[in-house]
Parts: sequence; C-alpha cells; structure tokens
Amino acid sequence: MLKIDTHTHVLPSAWPDLAERFGDLRFPVLRQEEGRYRIYRDGKFFREIQPNTWDAQLRIEQYAQFGIGVQVLSTVPVMFCYWADGAQALLLHQALNDHLADLGRSHPQHYLGLATVPLQAPDLAIRELERSVKELGLAGVQIGSHCEPWNLDAPELSEFFATAESLDACILVHPWDMMGAASMPKYWMPWLVGMPAEQSRAACALIFGGVLERHPKLRVALAHGGGSFPYTLGRIEHGFNMRPDLVAVDNQRPPREYLSRLYFDCCVHDDRALQYLLDTVGSEQVMLGTDYPFPLGEQEPGSGIERVVSDAAAQKQLFSQTALNWLGSRAQAQLGF
Amino acid sequence: MLKIDTHTHVLPSAWPDLAERFGDLRFPVLRQEEGRYRIYRDGKFFREIQPNTWDAQLRIEQYAQFGIGVQVLSTVPVMFCYWADGAQALLLHQALNDHLADLGRSHPQHYLGLATVPLQAPDLAIRELERSVKELGLAGVQIGSHCEPWNLDAPELSEFFATAESLDACILVHPWDMMGAASMPKYWMPWLVGMPAEQSRAACALIFGGVLERHPKLRVALAHGGGSFPYTLGRIEHGFNMRPDLVAVDNQRPPREYLSRLYFDCCVHDDRALQYLLDTVGSEQVMLGTDYPFPLGEQEPGSGIERVVSDAAAQKQLFSQTALNWLGSRAQAQLGF
Repeated sequence: MLKIDTHTHVLPSAWPDLAERFGDLRFPVLRQEEGRYRIYRDGKFFREIQPNTWDAQLRIEQYAQFGIGVQVLSTVPVMFCYWADGAQALLLHQALNDHLADLGRSHPQHYLGLATVPLQAPDLAIRELERSVKELGLAGVQIGSHCEPWNLDAPELSEFFATAESLDACILVHPWDMMGAASMPKYWMPWLVGMPAEQSRAACALIFGGVLERHPKLRVALAHGGGSFPYTLGRIEHGFNMRPDLVAVDNQRPPREYLSRLYFDCCVHDDRALQYLLDTVGSEQVMLGTDYPFPLGEQEPGSGIERVVSDAAAQKQLFSQTALNWLGSRAQAQLGF
Repeated sequence: MLKIDTHTHVLPSAWPDLAERFGDLRFPVLRQEEGRYRIYRDGKFFREIQPNTWDAQLRIEQYAQFGIGVQVLSTVPVMFCYWADGAQALLLHQALNDHLADLGRSHPQHYLGLATVPLQAPDLAIRELERSVKELGLAGVQIGSHCEPWNLDAPELSEFFATAESLDACILVHPWDMMGAASMPKYWMPWLVGMPAEQSRAACALIFGGVLERHPKLRVALAHGGGSFPYTLGRIEHGFNMRPDLVAVDNQRPPREYLSRLYFDCCVHDDRALQYLLDTVGSEQVMLGTDYPFPLGEQEPGSGIERVVSDAAAQKQLFSQTALNWLGSRAQAQLGF
C-alpha cells in the first residue's frame, strides 16, 4: 500500500553561515563537533540533529521498516528566520529549497519537497515560491503559524496566498515562535502547550480572516493534528455565534464549514484523539504525518492509523489518498498517478 | 434532580473604587451610566454587565427555568488584579469575598461561594483564604491559570496550596491573562485560542511541577472543560515519555495518572468534545459548569449534558455527584448532605 508521510523534517548537512556573513548570531548555524551535528542560535547550543535529519538513504531505509515509501519534506521551523531582514533570510531559504529539490530529483519515488520562503518579505516570498514550484518542482510550501506581528489573515500576506493558489501549491502550516514561550520555560511547555495553540491561532486567522473564503482552491494542511483547534472547534463556533461583532467581522461563514477545506495530519499521539479528529473533520481531511525524525513525532510512523483504522479503504484514504488530494497534480504526476 | 453549576460568575452591584483611591487606573471600576453597569479598566470601557451578573433573585429565577438549583459562585477574572500591589488588591478581594459570603448566607440552598485572593502576595492570599473558609464559610477558592510570572508550580505558591489542602478548600482554576493576547487582537482569539491554552498551561504546571503529587488531598477543577488539555493529553504524555530530561524534572509520575485527581466542567460547546472528555477523564471527574452569565457560556445550562448523557445515574454523576465530591464536606453540609 502506498503510504505518504506528509510531515517530515529534513536539513542539509551544511548550510550558509549567515551569522558570520551578516554578523547576526540569531541566524541558526550548524557546527560539526566531534562527529556530532549541532545547531547553534544566539551563540548558544540549540539542538543536536541526528543523521536521519540529513542522510537521504538512511531516511529511506528507516521508512522502509514501516512500509512507508514517500516522505513529504519540509525544513525545521528554526530555519524560518522570519525575524530577519528578508533579503538576508532569502539566501538561507534558497539554499534549503535547492537541497529539497535535489532530494526530489534524486529520489522521485521517495521525496516530495515543500519550499520555505521569507514570509516577512512577501514580495521575496512570492518570487521564491514561484521559483520553487516552477523551476525546482516542489509541491508546495511550509509556513509558520504566524509571521512576526502578522497572523495569517494579515493583508500583507494576501498576495502570497493568491500566488500559492494560482501555482496550485499546497501549504503546510507548522507551529513556530510559540505563544507564551517566555512565560513557560519549564516542562517543555512551549512545545506541549504553545504549539497546539499556535495551530488554533493559524486556523482561526485563515477562517475568520477570510483567507480560505477568498481562495477557494487553496489547500492548507495543519500539522500536529491541527493542534488544539479540532477539540476547541465547538468553543470557537460558539464564540462566532455569540459575538459576531468580534468574530464575524471579516467573514460571515461559520467556522465549521471550513473543515472540509482544511487538512490535518494524524500526529496526535492518542488513539481516542485521532478517532475524535476523524469523527470531527472526516477521513478525507486526515492524512499520515509524523514529525519525523524528531522526538515529538510518532516514533513508529503509521502505527496510530493502523491501531485506530482497520478498514482497508479507510486506511488507504489516510495513508495516501488524502495526501494526494492535498499535494495536488504535480506531486501525483511525480509519483506516477 | 439536584443540579449544581460549578462555574458561574457573580459581581456585586458596587465595589471599592481602588483606581481613585490609589491613583491607579488599572484597577477595574464599575460605573452606572444611564441605568447601565459598565466596567472600566485603564480608563477605557471594558465590558458591560447585565443584571443577572449581580441580581441574586434574578439569577435564581433564571436557573429555575433550567431546573438547576445550585450555583457555585466565583468572581470575574478581571477582578484578580494579580498585577497590583498585594495589599491594595486585598481590599478588593475582601469586598468580593464578603459579598460571596452574603449570598451564601442569604440563599444557602442556591449559592456556594469560591473566594478570590491576591495570589501575587502569597502570605496575604493564605490569610484571606483562611478568613474566607473559616469565617465566611466559603467552599474554596478560584485562582487564575497563572499569576504574573508564576505558573502554578512556582515555589512561591507552594504554601498557598498546602493551606488550601489543609483547609479542605476546593480550587477552581480559571483562564486569565491569556497567552498570546497582544499578538491576537482580532476575532476574539484571546478567548477562543488563548483561554484553552491557559488551562493546559495550568494543568501541566500542577502535574509536572508536583503540586498534585505533594498535595494528595487537594481538589482542583479546570474550568472551560480543561481547555485544550484533554485533547492534547496524548501529546503531553508523549513529551513526558520522550524528553524526561525536560519534562520529568520535578515529578516522575506520568501525567495520565493525574486525570483522576482533576475535575473538569462540561463547558466545551460540542457534543463530541464532551463525549471525548467523558471517555478520557471519566464521568466521575466531569461536572456541570457553564460560565454563566457570559456569552462564552452554555446558554441553556445543562443542555450539553442532557444531549450527551441519557442514563439517569450518569446524569446524576455529572449534575451533582462529581461537584459534591469536588466541593467537599462543608458544601455538602450546607446543601443538607
């Protein structure tokens, strides 16, 4: 059975040292120390990455153990650098996109790339998205749950979404720059509490800001199972109904009507939560997505779906069909559909 | 059937004007203008409140329509004033607690009060909690999901929780000072996105910080259905398992083991979400709670439980038994148990 993991992160084993080039230590830098690969940011150790973050063959072999053939690749959100000067950040995004394109070209049956763009400079982001799709053949683009002061409904981002729609480029929204992080330094709470909230922020902005309404062909997926959005949908809908003066100011359509427009990965780490997600948004909107190769990801990719869904047709929907619908025709062609 | 609404807010029709007294406009002030009651904060209009916020008889009559006899009363979180000098804020908390006690004394079969305390000054908070329980006969205390820089695991709050435990005072955790609020000015997102995250922050702090572990008799309820915590429990548990070096630093017990120690109201505005909550934490931990009389509350108190739970014994559990367990022996005695 074809299985497509829509939420995997990849990095090259080297990338431009913008911290040195621009004298700005906020840019993430990769250092090889004693055979280990360590990312530094702000001059401090940020995270060590393992070979399965960059080794294309190793990733394919690890996935073969789980019977999964295709990985949709996106960069690690620390690379977004939305805080930076757009033209500086663009150099990093370009290098990452070139790397993603290389992987797709050398392993077309295994890798599909999602571009990354300097969203803080919409004109540059649009041009890099166009290059990524038209010249590099990437399937779509990964963006953060917000971009500095802009939520995803910001007028400044309107043209970017129009371009993604016209390019038939799918969008993966990934949590980033987690709300409340500074006030929750302990217990990994930015990841466990802030990340789910970021996805709900993104969903609300896309819905209430009218982004999905204005771009009916835009295909947006929310990583990490949509965060807290699916479970709090009733609350969000109730807010829309009770205080339209606050909520329905830019879009009159109720939020639930947009569930059929959003895609969700299955990365919720709980069988009951996955069943709730399936019951709420429908299996046609849910797809395999694991956050591989990171510790918050599903450690046995696909095991959640296998435990919760036994019917073969339903499994096929979750393992490939929803993903193919989200990815679109270019990706389908690359995989031979 | 006895029905107890564990999550209702009340205000007196007048309270001390601390803004004038201390020359600090951040204190909430109630103004009567053209027959309307309006709360001002920072010199700006904050919210208009309706008679069912302060009129004891009207509230009882409105609840009679829904067949609900008992309201557990707590103040409106804007009154917390955790940002203020503790001794100044104490004056407001004392006035509010005296009012809550009046309501309980004049309508013992209808009203049970939860105190409010200046949590930013733990010594004062402890003394006011002792006064509220011992002298005023209140059942417990409502606190915010955090208190300025302190999450609920802060060592500064340790003695407060010990006092609540020794007083047999139940605790209601209410979202407040919503994370991300400044970055989400539109679409009521602080209420629709930030509030659920605040409850997850509080739950994680109480669990991972060892508060529940150190105080085995402490009875804590999370308002608003626990926010995003129940749906993201799998993720939180996964984080605990995968990165104990970050998460299990102060408490080794897995988070799921604390579900039987936490209480949740049913205020989720979605039948499937309520069923998910019941399946996840068990009906013995879920109770009627509606956020009355505010627009984000359940507009027909009790209707959610009635739609989702048909069995009479299960309804009894949700309408009264869980609440009685949470409230404790003093409240039970007041109601004649």
